[in-house]
Amino acid sequence: MSDTTVTARKRGGAGAARRAERTSVKIETARFIERNIPNFDLLSSEALEIIETNAETILEEIGVNFVNNPSALALWKDAGADVQGERVHIPRGLARKLCATAPSRIKQYARNPEKTVEIGGNSLVCAPVYGPPFVRDLAGGRRYATIADFQKFVKLGYMSKWLHHSGGTVCEPTDVAVNKRHLDMLLAHMTLSDKPFMGSVTEPSRAQDSVDMCGILFGEDFVQNNTVMTSLININSPMTFDDVMMGALEVYARNNQACVVSPFIVGGAMAPVSVAGTLTQVLAEVLAGISYSQLIRPGAPVIFGTFVTSIDMNSGAPTFGTPEASQILYGAGQLARRMGLPYRSGGGLCGSKMPYAQAAYESANTLQAALMGGVNFMLHSCGWLEGGLVSSFEKFVMDADQLGILHHIAKGVQIDENAQAMGAIREVGPGGHYLGCDHTQTNFKSAFWRTEILDYKPFETWQEEGARDTVTLAAERVEKMINTYQKPAIDPAVEEALTDYVTRKKASFPDSFT
Amino acid sequence: MSDTTVTARKRGGAGAARRAERTSVKIETARFIERNIPNFDLLSSEALEIIETNAETILEEIGVNFVNNPSALALWKDAGADVQGERVHIPRGLARKLCATAPSRIKQYARNPEKTVEIGGNSLVCAPVYGPPFVRDLAGGRRYATIADFQKFVKLGYMSKWLHHSGGTVCEPTDVAVNKRHLDMLLAHMTLSDKPFMGSVTEPSRAQDSVDMCGILFGEDFVQNNTVMTSLININSPMTFDDVMMGALEVYARNNQACVVSPFIVGGAMAPVSVAGTLTQVLAEVLAGISYSQLIRPGAPVIFGTFVTSIDMNSGAPTFGTPEASQILYGAGQLARRMGLPYRSGGGLCGSKMPYAQAAYESANTLQAALMGGVNFMLHSCGWLEGGLVSSFEKFVMDADQLGILHHIAKGVQIDENAQAMGAIREVGPGGHYLGCDHTQTNFKSAFWRTEILDYKPFETWQEEGARDTVTLAAERVEKMINTYQKPAIDPAVEEALTDYVTRKKASFPDSFT
Repeated sequence: MSDTTVTARKRGGAGAARRAERTSVKIETARFIERNIPNFDLLSSEALEIIETNAETILEEIGVNFVNNPSALALWKDAGADVQGERVHIPRGLARKLCATAPSRIKQYARNPEKTVEIGGNSLVCAPVYGPPFVRDLAGGRRYATIADFQKFVKLGYMSKWLHHSGGTVCEPTDVAVNKRHLDMLLAHMTLSDKPFMGSVTEPSRAQDSVDMCGILFGEDFVQNNTVMTSLININSPMTFDDVMMGALEVYARNNQACVVSPFIVGGAMAPVSVAGTLTQVLAEVLAGISYSQLIRPGAPVIFGTFVTSIDMNSGAPTFGTPEASQILYGAGQLARRMGLPYRSGGGLCGSKMPYAQAAYESANTLQAALMGGVNFMLHSCGWLEGGLVSSFEKFVMDADQLGILHHIAKGVQIDENAQAMGAIREVGPGGHYLGCDHTQTNFKSAFWRTEILDYKPFETWQEEGARDTVTLAAERVEKMINTYQKPAIDPAVEEALTDYVTRKKASFPDSFT
Repeated sequence: MSDTTVTARKRGGAGAARRAERTSVKIETARFIERNIPNFDLLSSEALEIIETNAETILEEIGVNFVNNPSALALWKDAGADVQGERVHIPRGLARKLCATAPSRIKQYARNPEKTVEIGGNSLVCAPVYGPPFVRDLAGGRRYATIADFQKFVKLGYMSKWLHHSGGTVCEPTDVAVNKRHLDMLLAHMTLSDKPFMGSVTEPSRAQDSVDMCGILFGEDFVQNNTVMTSLININSPMTFDDVMMGALEVYARNNQACVVSPFIVGGAMAPVSVAGTLTQVLAEVLAGISYSQLIRPGAPVIFGTFVTSIDMNSGAPTFGTPEASQILYGAGQLARRMGLPYRSGGGLCGSKMPYAQAAYESANTLQAALMGGVNFMLHSCGWLEGGLVSSFEKFVMDADQLGILHHIAKGVQIDENAQAMGAIREVGPGGHYLGCDHTQTNFKSAFWRTEILDYKPFETWQEEGARDTVTLAAERVEKMINTYQKPAIDPAVEEALTDYVTRKKASFPDSFT
């Protein structure tokens, strides 16, 4: 299918679409991962049952706060919860029952149907870094992010083969008013890429803008009947659901759009220092949040989210790539699967200030755990630096390259006759070598994953070429990608309508930078 | 127990040992890992059975070569193999039957009994890099390794908390004659560290020297009745067993000392490009090698080894941290467990020329796989650089720091009342924070793994302190460790006897540098 099918079908603008398509370059994007390998189940069933029982105890006896949200409290009361002030006590079993209407797998449409993804089951969808106010690159150092940086990240995401999703706030465009930047961000995702993306959550009205703009891009009926956004709803751990995030969730749930309901936890600060205690709190929070989404609209698509890092007790800094974070990732994945819900966690997380070895150790530890731990939606797959304060251009392409490894491991091991290679082993025999044999010649192109960045050259060549480090090689790749970027085809009428919407909206109220 | 118990008991030199001990600093070494987590089983039983059947076909129909080794051929013939020239055809089932006498778990004694390790079952023993002719550090760059470098690595290994084993050829001391350097290496391991170590394999006579020196260190009877060395016997893949390696294996097997029997494979060159094909060849080779060890001495301790990397078809270079290498690691682990044998694989392997991000991505990928894949003995756990051509001082301490992560993940998740932390969750409640609560104060010191190298400081502090990269931080740690190094206590009479042995041996024949 062409990458303009959806819009062309809807508007009858097939001619314009075809013209646009003819001039575009096809960018290769890997299909989202469908694991052909088992998940790694770290915790025993007994341990999981204890955690589940304790999570129900939290909901019933301690309760959760829904802040500044009278209509939420009313909904909870109607559903059978014991509401005292803003505290909601959820009777044992009720939350799990409410969660049962949430789908186990979500199909999120991209405007290019080839790039539509499915989140749930054995899938793994990779999305880029989300949220940093700063950007960094070798040339410009660390600085506040701008909308130009944002657009550059969207372009890199579009061109990254192993990245399935364009993400959301790949960096905060701080040069655009706080109350308007979501419009520019959405426009960038919709026009500079054709991969699926995320909506705004910083105000319910901005969530509504996201839905309205999707109506232009996909058609309003299509949006009401299909999921075209996956947005990030963080819980203020411990056990607090604020009105801004819940307001956004309400908009998305009513419009059939997916939300990641995600405790945001620095272990030792927002949750107990123990893994089991943190998992218990995570489960209680997710049960409450997802129940609430189902109270808004039974069947609303949601994802069991877990963002957990631990605190360094010496410095107070969040730490990444740690064993405790991996244990929580594995455990939460098991809890999500027992609920039959899609699972979000992982990412190329690191505390490192620069894309040095520390960043790579920390990121690789988490990327591996995310693959093995059954993550379905991986935000921060690439580009995350300095504990999420910085989006790094070089790290974006470095991590994105590593995502190829996850794709290849997830394929599992082929065992057909060609893969058994008995003919080759017979042909070569003891003391021989395989480089020239038929089997090698036939298979070598697809046999091994190959990096697009890392250095595999002989030592002498590497030295002659300037002994470049990984960051330098990555910077060269960023430049090459940006220089060859071509915008994906889009129906000009759709693009114009989107631009009009953004222009009109931005003119309709004054700028605010708070 | 004191770290001189073994030698003191044997020689009655308790007074001297106690004096030596009083002046020594106790260095903390973690006990070898005993996994409290499941292994990751990548391949299905059906796939493993096909591979096992095919491996038997290789042994029977293609055969393996035992080169320049008439006595090996005679042993094989006696055992029922069809020997044609140097080619040994092993009837289906024979090799597996011969392997059955090999123990499933090996206790390798250290001269400090607290550092004795067990290899097999759920254990993971970490040993450092093995074999590089070059060393590298920030101050001195890349250069040929010397015995001084070797001694420095042994000291670092002795002081590395998460490293259980002193290893073998941590680098090649190229300033010592090829035919004598094993003596200096053994002396360094025996006197500068008190952790378990490996013997020489480069000539059968040097294996005998290793056994004889162990006789001085542990007592001859002790050595005959216990395993005090684990040595590395590489197979010349495909399917070739040379007389030097087999000669060393013969010495060790006869003396009850452990050998890792390890195909050394660059996939696409020494094995088929497919994972299943490579696993089949690996299994055939290990079956033949371990069978042979059992023909020498039934019950000889051996380890199922797998060193596999894949070739980059563009440059011909070996590559590390790749998905195919991980798949082979996982699959070979399953094959080893089905044979009930201890398993060697993994390590902080990388192709990177420097300890930059590339090195860390590649190393972390393999370290994680080794933990999850059930490796029992991990050579190259730390310090490996540039495809094994270089031992890096900085990467040694960087990787050794990461080994702490494996220890913490392997512990599994505690689920006792303290770990459940329900009291803390109750005490803190919605909207609170955990930093000050009793549970956090009681548990924070042991709750999280903490790096000894990586930077967790606030951005501003990091910048003010010179924005140091990971390699610089690692170089500082190397210097600090070496400056505070203190030799572990040893009975002076034993040390003198070892030194005498080395001096005498070295004087007894001329130097050779080939």
